[in-house]
Amino acid sequence: MAEVNTLPRTSIAGRTPEPGAAAWVGPDELSRLLHEAYAPIAPWLAEAERIYREELGSRSDYVQRLVEHASRFRGKQLRPALVLLTAQACGGVLPAHPVVAAVVEMIHTATLVHDDILDEADVRRHAATINAEWGNEPAVLLGDYLFTHAFHLAASLESTYACRVIGRATNLVCEGELQQIHHRGDLDLDEQSYYEIVRGKTAELTAVCCRLGAHYAGQPPEICDALDRFGRDLGVAFQIADDLLDLWGEEVATGKTLGTDLQKQKLTLPVIFLLRSADRTEADAARRLVASPSAESRRKLRPMLESSGALEYAWDRARSFVESARLELAALPASPTRETLAGLAQLVVRRCF
Amino acid sequence: MAEVNTLPRTSIAGRTPEPGAAAWVGPDELSRLLHEAYAPIAPWLAEAERIYREELGSRSDYVQRLVEHASRFRGKQLRPALVLLTAQACGGVLPAHPVVAAVVEMIHTATLVHDDILDEADVRRHAATINAEWGNEPAVLLGDYLFTHAFHLAASLESTYACRVIGRATNLVCEGELQQIHHRGDLDLDEQSYYEIVRGKTAELTAVCCRLGAHYAGQPPEICDALDRFGRDLGVAFQIADDLLDLWGEEVATGKTLGTDLQKQKLTLPVIFLLRSADRTEADAARRLVASPSAESRRKLRPMLESSGALEYAWDRARSFVESARLELAALPASPTRETLAGLAQLVVRRCF
Repeated sequence: MAEVNTLPRTSIAGRTPEPGAAAWVGPDELSRLLHEAYAPIAPWLAEAERIYREELGSRSDYVQRLVEHASRFRGKQLRPALVLLTAQACGGVLPAHPVVAAVVEMIHTATLVHDDILDEADVRRHAATINAEWGNEPAVLLGDYLFTHAFHLAASLESTYACRVIGRATNLVCEGELQQIHHRGDLDLDEQSYYEIVRGKTAELTAVCCRLGAHYAGQPPEICDALDRFGRDLGVAFQIADDLLDLWGEEVATGKTLGTDLQKQKLTLPVIFLLRSADRTEADAARRLVASPSAESRRKLRPMLESSGALEYAWDRARSFVESARLELAALPASPTRETLAGLAQLVVRRCF
Repeated sequence: MAEVNTLPRTSIAGRTPEPGAAAWVGPDELSRLLHEAYAPIAPWLAEAERIYREELGSRSDYVQRLVEHASRFRGKQLRPALVLLTAQACGGVLPAHPVVAAVVEMIHTATLVHDDILDEADVRRHAATINAEWGNEPAVLLGDYLFTHAFHLAASLESTYACRVIGRATNLVCEGELQQIHHRGDLDLDEQSYYEIVRGKTAELTAVCCRLGAHYAGQPPEICDALDRFGRDLGVAFQIADDLLDLWGEEVATGKTLGTDLQKQKLTLPVIFLLRSADRTEADAARRLVASPSAESRRKLRPMLESSGALEYAWDRARSFVESARLELAALPASPTRETLAGLAQLVVRRCF
């Protein structure tokens, strides 16, 4: 399979991320920027990784192989990094933080493994998905194994706080995913309902990462709430960007099966915008294309989305969520790590792969 | 669909459960006996039910419908009853107990929903499975929703104890299920490996029910350990009986898709016994039948199992696990509830449907 590095792609549908502003970030550049951003928390990230592996270790070779395969899906480590960077920005990383970081990464990996079943995806991070390589049954069970270990690990902390907060967040993640399935093929899905789904399925977990980072650094509730909002807005922006990449990304660069949203008739922001703003004839044509998913209909939809302004609209909304997120950081004292968090938020809408 | 009550079946393959001893228990009789056994804890079972529904309630009609459909799969309420009866036998039910009872029932329901995906089962407790009625995707997510709510609810208790113990047990449940998949089609699976799988996938949870019942009644560790062993042995016996019913039960009475073990090439105790004890020619014939699953091969295997003594052997093993379970109850003072627990253990090997 092609290496990420071979791809010199630096734009999406010919657009720049912000007119006259920072350039798109390709795979190599993203790796470099994340490496830089994570440098101050690198030892703690390594500790989170150690805890992750220790918790999931199994005497069974078979289970161990599945766990290790799923570990390959972990890439940007955004969620553990959010826990640790928030902790750092709130006064310092303490021993509870890498545990929490491992827990959220485990939950994220569980959702990826189960998502790939739902999406019938074959490839993730340049590796075969569990369902593609081993079938749906081990994929269902491995996801469960990751979930239960995450809660088991969370319960190793002193109080029930992490279990409660993570329990509540994962409840909402599942509910968001179920809502998404329920609204599949619903051509009348509106923008607010889209955000509700995204807040559940993606933003709850990033919110909780930041809340727990602050909480275990001993911050008072109002700071924890501000960081929760930071993580939530960042999560929504991240999901909008991810949805855009599902339409315009290239599989060779993202390293995962793309086009699954339209294939599964999940309406995302650009499509919602197009159906709402196009004139009757164009909207009807677009509805027909969305209603009969295929590679061909996706190919035909793309230029319609581009000329309608849907692409700009969606990026604009993503950037505005990033802006809201960054404003919440004012709750923290100025520090290099606070700037890193602000930069990380911006980075999620600068990926072009 | 036919009512359970229409079935006057009172034997399995013409055998009595114990030569000259208590008769088989059919559906009506089981209902009556359970009603009697649960009478002293009935208000607490109702409270567990209320907590269960409250925890799972969703503003989304869609999610609510799925949750309610899955509630129909809950029948004997064996696991919540084990929590509450153990509590009662240990001095009395306290407010933590119905919470724990709701948690274990939620986890059990989650595993049923996911198991039906793995088994491609269509019917459970006389109702369509979630996968059959709504598809695999909502079934994966509903199972997740039940798991995460279970942990969220467990985290509402004062300490992390329940989260830790339930986390550990569910880890082993998932590992047991993964091991079972791994050994699918493994005609050399031996009896010890079978027990290991069963201890994980079934007996961990029944063990934890009894442990938590004792723990939250304020019992010391040695009593909790004894009750854990009681629940574990009861769970193994229960699973052997369930495996026998998968071979000899009748769908109209059990109300679920049967024959899935052989169909999915999961070797259970009677088959393991047959392959081990039959002479070369018969063993070869049996191996060929197991290796090419169909309704026809299952029909041919049954008389081979019956004439080989596999049926007696498996019932005998199940009864011996029940005996071990009952011996553990000596750790408790004599009481009517202790007798009820003993009777419940025996009941799991007297079902004939």
